Amino acid sequence: MYTFKTSVKLHDTDTAGFLFFAHQFKIAHDAYEDFMEAVGLGFGRIINASDFLLPIVHAEADYKAVLGVGDKLSVQLRAEKIGKTSFTLAYNLVGLDGSSAGKVKTVHVCVDNIKKKKIPLPEKLRKALETIA
Amino acid sequence: MYTFKTSVKLHDTDTAGFLFFAHQFKIAHDAYEDFMEAVGLGFGRIINASDFLLPIVHAEADYKAVLGVGDKLSVQLRAEKIGKTSFTLAYNLVGLDGSSAGKVKTVHVCVDNIKKKKIPLPEKLRKALETIA
Amino acid sequence: MYTFKTSVKLHDTDTAGFLFFAHQFKIAHDAYEDFMEAVGLGFGRIINASDFLLPIVHAEADYKAVLGVGDKLSVQLRAEKIGKTSFTLAYNLVGLDGSSAGKVKTVHVCVDNIKKKKIPLPEKLRKALETIA
Amino acid sequence: MYTFKTSVKLHDTDTAGFLFFAHQFKIAHDAYEDFMEAVGLGFGRIINASDFLLPIVHAEADYKAVLGVGDKLSVQLRAEKIGKTSFTLAYNLVGLDGSSAGKVKTVHVCVDNIKKKKIPLPEKLRKALETIA
Repeated sequence: MYTFKTSVKLHDTDTAGFLFFAHQFKIAHDAYEDFMEAVGLGFGRIINASDFLLPIVHAEADYKAVLGVGDKLSVQLRAEKIGKTSFTLAYNLVGLDGSSAGKVKTVHVCVDNIKKKKIPLPEKLRKALETIA
Repeated sequence: MYTFKTSVKLHDTDTAGFLFFAHQFKIAHDAYEDFMEAVGLGFGRIINASDFLLPIVHAEADYKAVLGVGDKLSVQLRAEKIGKTSFTLAYNLVGLDGSSAGKVKTVHVCVDNIKKKKIPLPEKLRKALETIA
Repeated sequence: MYTFKTSVKLHDTDTAGFLFFAHQFKIAHDAYEDFMEAVGLGFGRIINASDFLLPIVHAEADYKAVLGVGDKLSVQLRAEKIGKTSFTLAYNLVGLDGSSAGKVKTVHVCVDNIKKKKIPLPEKLRKALETIA
Repeated sequence: MYTFKTSVKLHDTDTAGFLFFAHQFKIAHDAYEDFMEAVGLGFGRIINASDFLLPIVHAEADYKAVLGVGDKLSVQLRAEKIGKTSFTLAYNLVGLDGSSAGKVKTVHVCVDNIKKKKIPLPEKLRKALETIA
């Protein structure tokens, strides 16, 4: 499990006074970016200097508690499934009281940078994902 | 079915050159807001002047084609399920060529504005949803 | 003058109940993108298939009235200054009552796509800007 | 001076490959929120439980260097001007190499929560701002 600490910013909330639902995905992705950076696979390099991309083909979220501006969160990231050409990440947004405020899943496929055809996960990525499986 | 026309803005895309996945949810919600406004249930009034709220408890999306800046979209909105205290909206993001670029679902519960307890859908909302069922 | 019609979306607002200040810039830029598309200079083509880019080097905004979710706006876009290698756009966000809710300015320089050196504005762009000067 | 550390996220960038200009304001505001939280004036409390609000009436930014996904930033926040009923914050976004990638200014007025009339800055806020003047 990889843990990313963040907090709900004013621009993450809306008039109703809580986190806007789409921004829960944004916060989850921030955790994924932080993990990838930590394992030497930062997005700048992947997008501009690698031969693969990792587009998201499915995403889903459950909302369990309201989150307001300033609320501190630990996003717990796990690799739920590691396939040959795809993987599924599961994120648990945990509040200060230790309870889950929301969950997110994203399914990624690995494609080559030119033809956008599915290719096997690069070894470096597979090994990194296995550390959080 | 309710149709909302929009286009992918520069700030909806990211360095990879395509729509950032979380923003597909944002675009879907824009269509929902437009529908609610059209049926006299605009969000300003619901949040500030009604006795109910409609928080999202689940959301999911599939990504079928890459979308880039300037791409024109018709978001086709349907009420997939209308329950006693909840409803599910289905959104199909259709490109100029008529094919689906992505799909979204959001599940909403109706709660009272004070105690946040589940309450039956207001008649006006139920009737509006039935027109797009 | 070029006019772009839009409305304040729920995700443009924050817990205070009004448009989040940074999103006034986003709304202004939406009008600029719409104008560029209308004159055959859509951003997809500029970024991916032209030899110039138009980075923003300065931006500023004044906030004159609060804007809430659902508020309809006409963004009135003018080219305030057209220089040899740069131009300044002025945006007036006008509400339904005809009064200004906010103003934005953005200063753009034209650079070549490779070395990012200043170059003269392309004729097509200059002529398009002159139509809204 | 108050320093807030952050990094450019994928959703902060656009197809051109750099930070979308409006998001420089968002990043600056994140630093302001962090500062306010640190001095006991978190936005959740101000908006929901105080008798004053601090709307932004003017904002401006200069862009000095391109910022890409993953770039680490220190946002250096200072109170440039502390008036009777208003204050101006200046933000310097400093990259890892110590040079400025961008600057932001925001002008805030203090208004009462009911009539939205200008009122003097609360003592606690004034003292907090003086620590970063």
